[in-house]
Amino acid sequence: MDISHIEHIGIAVKSLDEAIPYWENVLGLKCYNIEEVADQKVKTAFFKVGQTKIELLEPTSEESTIAKFIEKKGQGVHHIAFAVNGIENALADASEKGVQLIDKAPRGGAEGLSIAFLHPKSTCSVLTELCEDKNK
Amino acid sequence: MDISHIEHIGIAVKSLDEAIPYWENVLGLKCYNIEEVADQKVKTAFFKVGQTKIELLEPTSEESTIAKFIEKKGQGVHHIAFAVNGIENALADASEKGVQLIDKAPRGGAEGLSIAFLHPKSTCSVLTELCEDKNK
Repeated sequence: MDISHIEHIGIAVKSLDEAIPYWENVLGLKCYNIEEVADQKVKTAFFKVGQTKIELLEPTSEESTIAKFIEKKGQGVHHIAFAVNGIENALADASEKGVQLIDKAPRGGAEGLSIAFLHPKSTCSVLTELCEDKNK
Repeated sequence: MDISHIEHIGIAVKSLDEAIPYWENVLGLKCYNIEEVADQKVKTAFFKVGQTKIELLEPTSEESTIAKFIEKKGQGVHHIAFAVNGIENALADASEKGVQLIDKAPRGGAEGLSIAFLHPKSTCSVLTELCEDKNK
């Protein structure tokens, strides 16, 4: 698998309005985008820190997987996303090596990326996203 | 606070021997260092991905905070570490803004860094480490 860097870290929060001031005022990062991802039932806020984005995820429905995550585990890191070159090959390779895939093929994610998740059962319990910017 | 990038992501694992093959063989990252941090009662394995390191943490004692974390929450992301310029000023600034500090002054961490932790109560439940390489 050809990973170049950590594209983003997804963090589950109850409320963007309550969380954003910490990231901006204490850590000094700037929220440059807020976006609703309807099919994931989340509202996301993005910050850039070096090569990596912080993606805060607020559930917009109790049905959201983020709402369920917060209910079970509390707020905190939800997933790590690696930027890969050739996401289809990366998925095929992971599958061949016995990794359980949540997404067998890439789908559209926030910020126009092609994304796919690996199952935490196969990844030391770290929910792992692979993503590629096909518009580059 | 002057953060340049994400220095590392700390991930609690039960066993380095069981975890390392996933990071090397599936993700294609290379473990470049294994180090025991006696006062933290952990053994750590480091991988580099872009600007950021992945730090796997295996407890070496049941008293280790990592052992307790795994017992309570299972394996997974334990903390995020930001590289800051001027760690003393960053801590003073965070404290002034009402952030609860675990370490009021920097102490020595793995790889010779000066490190300090912020309390997750103040950081959207993300255990947060600040670190600075004073040898640069």
